[in-house]
Amino acid sequence: MAQVLLGKEVADVLTEELADRVAKLKTKGVEPSLAIVRLGDEPDDLSYERGAINRAAKAAVKVKVYELPRDLPQEDLEQVIQEINQDDSLHGCLIFRPLPPQINEKKIAALLAPGKDIDGFTDGSLAGVFKGEPSGFAPCTAEAAIAILKHYHVNLSGARAVVLGRSLVIGKPVAMMLLQENATVTICHSRTKDIAKTAKEADVLIAAVGQAKMVTPEFCNSGQVIIDVGINVDEEGKLTGDVDYDSVEVLVKAITPVPRGVGSVTTSILMKHVVEAAERAMD
Amino acid sequence: MAQVLLGKEVADVLTEELADRVAKLKTKGVEPSLAIVRLGDEPDDLSYERGAINRAAKAAVKVKVYELPRDLPQEDLEQVIQEINQDDSLHGCLIFRPLPPQINEKKIAALLAPGKDIDGFTDGSLAGVFKGEPSGFAPCTAEAAIAILKHYHVNLSGARAVVLGRSLVIGKPVAMMLLQENATVTICHSRTKDIAKTAKEADVLIAAVGQAKMVTPEFCNSGQVIIDVGINVDEEGKLTGDVDYDSVEVLVKAITPVPRGVGSVTTSILMKHVVEAAERAMD
Repeated sequence: MAQVLLGKEVADVLTEELADRVAKLKTKGVEPSLAIVRLGDEPDDLSYERGAINRAAKAAVKVKVYELPRDLPQEDLEQVIQEINQDDSLHGCLIFRPLPPQINEKKIAALLAPGKDIDGFTDGSLAGVFKGEPSGFAPCTAEAAIAILKHYHVNLSGARAVVLGRSLVIGKPVAMMLLQENATVTICHSRTKDIAKTAKEADVLIAAVGQAKMVTPEFCNSGQVIIDVGINVDEEGKLTGDVDYDSVEVLVKAITPVPRGVGSVTTSILMKHVVEAAERAMD
Repeated sequence: MAQVLLGKEVADVLTEELADRVAKLKTKGVEPSLAIVRLGDEPDDLSYERGAINRAAKAAVKVKVYELPRDLPQEDLEQVIQEINQDDSLHGCLIFRPLPPQINEKKIAALLAPGKDIDGFTDGSLAGVFKGEPSGFAPCTAEAAIAILKHYHVNLSGARAVVLGRSLVIGKPVAMMLLQENATVTICHSRTKDIAKTAKEADVLIAAVGQAKMVTPEFCNSGQVIIDVGINVDEEGKLTGDVDYDSVEVLVKAITPVPRGVGSVTTSILMKHVVEAAERAMD
């Protein structure tokens, strides 16, 4: 039976650590504030937003939601972003993605003030992740995966880490962050031959493919720590990760569940980024 | 005996392909031009500069060298970069690195116009490499390694690629570019345990560690293609790569020599980037 790496414990410690920093900011008259930009009412966005608002309350971070129609024209969204850029009382800006097809996402990313990009959306943040420098902010989910590993004292230096998936929001940034922690990192994807064999050699396996129950016992070894970043819905309408939890959990050393794993930590990282953005804005 | 992957053949084809593009630019009154910024007379810089000037002559690219003292103050270098940024007749700018200690390299990178960054120095270029988008320019040496693999029709899709080294000028960008070609990529470095065992499993091995003759027969298999990016000087003062060429060459499928391998291609990539920068500036 594996150690179950619950996200709540990590999130609570992260939020607690923020309390002092938020208190210090408030004595200086600064109230760390997050702008959330949402186009339409996508269920995933709404669910994440609820989680973010709850977490923000715990962290004493203010939230302002820009609820916009799903068919908002490009120019109008650009105007909203510019408004947020210019508003000194807003320190971070989360824009729900993917944006609808009428929106040029690259233009929006280029417009957002780098200092307010608290979810690794702009070139400045992505270059920082690539360089291994804390100049911007990493995508929150990728950083949540690393935060869990660190919280549970999983040794990363010299470890063999295998990342399944190469997306810009998780796979690639998490690979760079593992490299920064001195892991030996392999990135696998849909074209990888014999993906199970490669995964099986991992000390740390990050599953970020977005395919329900793809990681089966053939991917695993008894010393392995698995971080399951997938959020999928199975045949029965149940939330499930990229890992076939029931068959894998009995084999490996440690594993994050879905739900109650990575997803529980992401909004805490978001709040940490907002507080950090507020601190940086004061320097 | 391995196939010897000579750089000259690749460089010549690349330069030839540029001829048409340069001719077309010239009919529009545009002469693609490269600014080289050199502080002092470091032998490596001078040697690379000579190669670049020769290659530029073949590609009909104009070169302007800014020869500056090694102890140039930060402000003066910033003024030179600003001058280059504003000069529409200069399309690309190569700044020899590492810069001397009195120079804040990050500030210089932030100052250089992204459109003129033809060697992957700015955040915009690095974010492009990370994203797998051609928005900026990759570091020339990393792209040279990929150009050799493509020229000699080495299959990369689904191939196991192992990169030895994680520098920002070679290891990391070459890893991202291999990923873009659908290879399964492993990045190894000084903290990697049993590096030879990992390397041995590679279909394509990129050696970019900067350690003379580090890659020995234990790193190799008979189907392997090796790209040796190292440029070192051995005990006898002879130029040598990261690969112990004599013992490895008899074992593997194909290998680049040092010299006459990757180093022969880098300046052609540089010229390609200058021409591309000139084309983009016209759009």
